[in-house]
Amino acid sequence: MTEIGFIGLGIMGRPMAEHLLAAGHRLHTSSHHKPVAPDLVEKGVVVHATPQGVAAASEIVFLMLPDTPQVEEVLFSGDGIAAGLSAGKIVVDMSSISPMATKEFAKRVEKSGGSYLDAPVSGGEVGAKAASLTIMVGGPQATFDKVKPLFELMGKNITLVGGNGDGQTTKVANQIIVALTIEAVGEALLFASKAGADPAKVRQALMGGFASSRILEVHGERMVKRSFDPGFRIGLHQKDLNLALQSARSLGVSLPNTATAQELLNTCVAHGGKGWDHSAMVRALEIMANHQVATS
Amino acid sequence: MTEIGFIGLGIMGRPMAEHLLAAGHRLHTSSHHKPVAPDLVEKGVVVHATPQGVAAASEIVFLMLPDTPQVEEVLFSGDGIAAGLSAGKIVVDMSSISPMATKEFAKRVEKSGGSYLDAPVSGGEVGAKAASLTIMVGGPQATFDKVKPLFELMGKNITLVGGNGDGQTTKVANQIIVALTIEAVGEALLFASKAGADPAKVRQALMGGFASSRILEVHGERMVKRSFDPGFRIGLHQKDLNLALQSARSLGVSLPNTATAQELLNTCVAHGGKGWDHSAMVRALEIMANHQVATS
Repeated sequence: MTEIGFIGLGIMGRPMAEHLLAAGHRLHTSSHHKPVAPDLVEKGVVVHATPQGVAAASEIVFLMLPDTPQVEEVLFSGDGIAAGLSAGKIVVDMSSISPMATKEFAKRVEKSGGSYLDAPVSGGEVGAKAASLTIMVGGPQATFDKVKPLFELMGKNITLVGGNGDGQTTKVANQIIVALTIEAVGEALLFASKAGADPAKVRQALMGGFASSRILEVHGERMVKRSFDPGFRIGLHQKDLNLALQSARSLGVSLPNTATAQELLNTCVAHGGKGWDHSAMVRALEIMANHQVATS
Repeated sequence: MTEIGFIGLGIMGRPMAEHLLAAGHRLHTSSHHKPVAPDLVEKGVVVHATPQGVAAASEIVFLMLPDTPQVEEVLFSGDGIAAGLSAGKIVVDMSSISPMATKEFAKRVEKSGGSYLDAPVSGGEVGAKAASLTIMVGGPQATFDKVKPLFELMGKNITLVGGNGDGQTTKVANQIIVALTIEAVGEALLFASKAGADPAKVRQALMGGFASSRILEVHGERMVKRSFDPGFRIGLHQKDLNLALQSARSLGVSLPNTATAQELLNTCVAHGGKGWDHSAMVRALEIMANHQVATS
């Protein structure tokens, strides 16, 4: 049994924390942001008033928060986690945040005597509930080895990519490829449809060749069948591409098609699509072409 | 044994024709463009002076030519194939050409009493030699059924997508997705490398998730290993994207990322890359970022 802190018990964090709880570990969390759900308290989750209190009571503290500013605040505000750290304690940030900020956070946590892993995930709510998340980790090997049994309670593909920040960098790379492959499939199926071919048959003919991908399989089918319920919301992918574009600017890298994909998501939002599945990016191309891949 | 015409015995066409020959069919070709290789004549290939002569002597005529103008000339010049057609004969264009022009060519061939299939391929020289080409077909079902046993001598994934033009449309869709997925993997791996992560490990971590694709597997590895010998030449992919963009303009469809990918290929050509493998599209991004995915 390990004393584990978990801050951020939202749509993703809660099912992840419950897998740790179910495995017999003691869970600590904080009520500083909002009250902890009564059923979690009944299951034995220990509630502290501050992140500092959580860190003081735990060997390992997990974070699952919306974005970079929330992670920074929970870590380094006056009664934040850093104030409760001591030698040997571990902070594991499973949020998807800036790779650049992550490298700085890791250094500051190390100065407080702790060790840091960035460990963002992909797989969404479904993967969180099924404990089948992909976990992309950056940080020291020894720290990774200590936390790995806990990762295995939450996910399946668990890779130590490199040092601190490399987990977040891998997540950004993942979101770039996913967005741009959705866009590619959208351009191809819309072109085919406008040229008079059946997009469902075109998709079928392309599977198995060099155009094949998980995106053509899953999101291509969504485009043809017009099933745009999330899945993964456009509003969240906008956040991720913003992270990619901001980081790229500070690094001095041009990401021309990521920039265009972000604009297409903006077009979707202008048409009420913040909550659509990201495969609905094709709708922006459809609006521009005044033509649909398929009728719903 | 079928009397088969084959016009265009180049890098792709020659090994394809040889599979037909090896299966015991009699092959007819034309010396109007250039002399037929002596070893093919020794193997029994019958040489005619004109495409018209080839069509007059054959039940089915295959074309494997560089682009739309060459196909139009071979079909409809004074001593072209159309002049040698009669009821029941079949023209099969396996070149990659304009879907719009193809629809018109099919109508003109039908007026000459023949039937038409567009049947472009993917898989390149390797696939042509191994008889493992993917063949994307447009045309009447009955004609497809007659030619299918011959397709099976040249390829493996053989799909009748729809009516005339739909085969070429599918090929264009394939080339759009392949180019844009290469571009996506390029942006992601270059971003990761510039952010300090090992692009080989990032690629490994992304395989198996939603970012996975044949392109990440094959072309992603080429980017990391700097192995840019073709493969599939940038000059050829430029031709295919030009087909996509020209067709899209005439159809009224915007393909923003295809347009950018074409510009990146232009950048490669400006740096001497017409003969590089298309995975070297990443070099255009590298030139812009003044940074390489990996050192060779």
